[in-house]
Amino acid sequence: MPATRVAVFVGSLRKESFSRKIAQALAELAPEGMTLDFVEIGQLPLYNQDDEPNPPESYRVFRQTVASADAVLFVTPEYNRSVPGALKNAIDVGSRPYGKSAWDGKPGAVVSVSPGAIGAFGANHHLRQSLVFLNVPTMQQPEAYIGNVTQLLDEGGKLTNEGTRTFLAKFMQSFAAWIEAVKKAS
Amino acid sequence: MPATRVAVFVGSLRKESFSRKIAQALAELAPEGMTLDFVEIGQLPLYNQDDEPNPPESYRVFRQTVASADAVLFVTPEYNRSVPGALKNAIDVGSRPYGKSAWDGKPGAVVSVSPGAIGAFGANHHLRQSLVFLNVPTMQQPEAYIGNVTQLLDEGGKLTNEGTRTFLAKFMQSFAAWIEAVKKAS
Amino acid sequence: MPATRVAVFVGSLRKESFSRKIAQALAELAPEGMTLDFVEIGQLPLYNQDDEPNPPESYRVFRQTVASADAVLFVTPEYNRSVPGALKNAIDVGSRPYGKSAWDGKPGAVVSVSPGAIGAFGANHHLRQSLVFLNVPTMQQPEAYIGNVTQLLDEGGKLTNEGTRTFLAKFMQSFAAWIEAVKKAS
Amino acid sequence: MPATRVAVFVGSLRKESFSRKIAQALAELAPEGMTLDFVEIGQLPLYNQDDEPNPPESYRVFRQTVASADAVLFVTPEYNRSVPGALKNAIDVGSRPYGKSAWDGKPGAVVSVSPGAIGAFGANHHLRQSLVFLNVPTMQQPEAYIGNVTQLLDEGGKLTNEGTRTFLAKFMQSFAAWIEAVKKAS
Repeated sequence: MPATRVAVFVGSLRKESFSRKIAQALAELAPEGMTLDFVEIGQLPLYNQDDEPNPPESYRVFRQTVASADAVLFVTPEYNRSVPGALKNAIDVGSRPYGKSAWDGKPGAVVSVSPGAIGAFGANHHLRQSLVFLNVPTMQQPEAYIGNVTQLLDEGGKLTNEGTRTFLAKFMQSFAAWIEAVKKAS
Repeated sequence: MPATRVAVFVGSLRKESFSRKIAQALAELAPEGMTLDFVEIGQLPLYNQDDEPNPPESYRVFRQTVASADAVLFVTPEYNRSVPGALKNAIDVGSRPYGKSAWDGKPGAVVSVSPGAIGAFGANHHLRQSLVFLNVPTMQQPEAYIGNVTQLLDEGGKLTNEGTRTFLAKFMQSFAAWIEAVKKAS
Repeated sequence: MPATRVAVFVGSLRKESFSRKIAQALAELAPEGMTLDFVEIGQLPLYNQDDEPNPPESYRVFRQTVASADAVLFVTPEYNRSVPGALKNAIDVGSRPYGKSAWDGKPGAVVSVSPGAIGAFGANHHLRQSLVFLNVPTMQQPEAYIGNVTQLLDEGGKLTNEGTRTFLAKFMQSFAAWIEAVKKAS
Repeated sequence: MPATRVAVFVGSLRKESFSRKIAQALAELAPEGMTLDFVEIGQLPLYNQDDEPNPPESYRVFRQTVASADAVLFVTPEYNRSVPGALKNAIDVGSRPYGKSAWDGKPGAVVSVSPGAIGAFGANHHLRQSLVFLNVPTMQQPEAYIGNVTQLLDEGGKLTNEGTRTFLAKFMQSFAAWIEAVKKAS
């Protein structure tokens, strides 16, 4: 059986992003038969519909990468109580041109990450609202709000908190089951 | 094969509710093998956790009705840019006591209805946020925002607009497929 | 100068509600010249527009109480990632009949309260969306998400955490300034 | 008395953007004593905190432009049921570095624009959630959801619909009053 290939989108562009570290932990915790491919978003120019007749090469590559994935996983901080502009831009790029969205029908999941207690709730649910429109059947439970993230990582950025590891492993198992369910339904 | 029994919740309590009329149209348009059971919510006292050791009989009946359904369908107006209090109360009642939510795992769908143009968008998406927590896998597409509803009904309250009929019939077919998919996954 | 009378609405009906305890702490921390009047919501029947020609006496009293207040303060838990049904119902009751909303123009503030870490973010912002429609100019900062509330109270339900006391005192001072600003603008 | 200078942010980058046309109509309808300055956002690189020690020159200019405005006005379409990535990125850029947000305390207003019936409700309210955090006191009423926008403009992109003109003129007068109120309060 071929592996399930999950495209991972990290909402923060900085190198030492906490979201990226959590995403790396998720990759390690993925169940057998699932691989996580990190898809970069920082190189995508701001979406402008006027460019559509002759889109940037980076758009073409990004859309194809999304379209070829079996599922999509978002790991993101909250910027100003919502989705970071860079991640929203990537979502917009992947959704166009009209009628050719690369997201359509891909099973999805959301993990929000924050150094604060609230766990980036605002980003998590704003993103989910977009995923309704994009027809990304998104796993409802478990929800994942990874708060106080600096306390969960060691100096090298490795996830050391055992409770969080167990939770994230379970999250990935649930996601694998969700992907199978959505695939069967199509 | 036994019929799929969908519990329907109408967000407005008034007798001539537009949402109820749309719900009735949905019942008529349901594909073969699916029946819609209207579940009343107006008799439920406001949720108070202190009543939980000895809950009102109406709670017991409501929770059992929800629990025995194969799927859940919400047809609702918007009150003050959100879910009507009566419908939110029903959701709260069904979600308790803690750990025994009657909603858990039921496939769901949302239709929002309004005499205005915006189609009760605010109610639609606030409700969806609750359904994440309640682990109700909710159909993403098609979304259903039924705006300008008074123009879609005849004097007897029957849905006469052909475009809307076609759309709602397709909505119910998609919902039937969604229910099957979620059931298989469990 | 007459005192500023703030009507307080507690989103939970249970007697030992954490939100009520935080509201009581807020009442004690209110700056001079401001009084907090607790307005009960548990006696309000579920809103049904059919009752409007002859509304329940409790509606009349509630609407008048809201209308006579100088400002409104909401202290609420989150139920299922949104506003509790009982509080949303009170909001709906106060907003009707159409064109006679008792909320119109009152300066407002929101405090959300939770035993969990996330601080009832979902209730806080869903409530804010309703307050846009109701034309309640709502204080933006400081936001108040009171998480892990059980750790902030003593056995008698008194707020003992010093950091939270300081924060809430500052919150009430900011609210007093906000009320003055909105009043001057009218 | 010096004019009130309102910085205007258009959420779409395409040249013939409907939002831009509505923003131009708003500029013409602004009451005496108010000028609207269009602030471009398409040149801003995607926000990356790693660039903060040595930020792009465009960031410096943008932040200064925002900081020097008396008020902020957002005119935006909806992309995927939320704020376009380009506009969210501009908001993020203006909000940093931490503790030096250029948005802080500016009175604000939101107009959402769509060729569809729903009037970009999702963008309007997601944006408002960010404005809470940014401490932008945002006008609650009138809300402005400009739907079916193609029917409101002539071939040259001029707003010809009389009802919409009257509404937008009133919107700008209310905004002027709101700006005065917030200024007095500071």
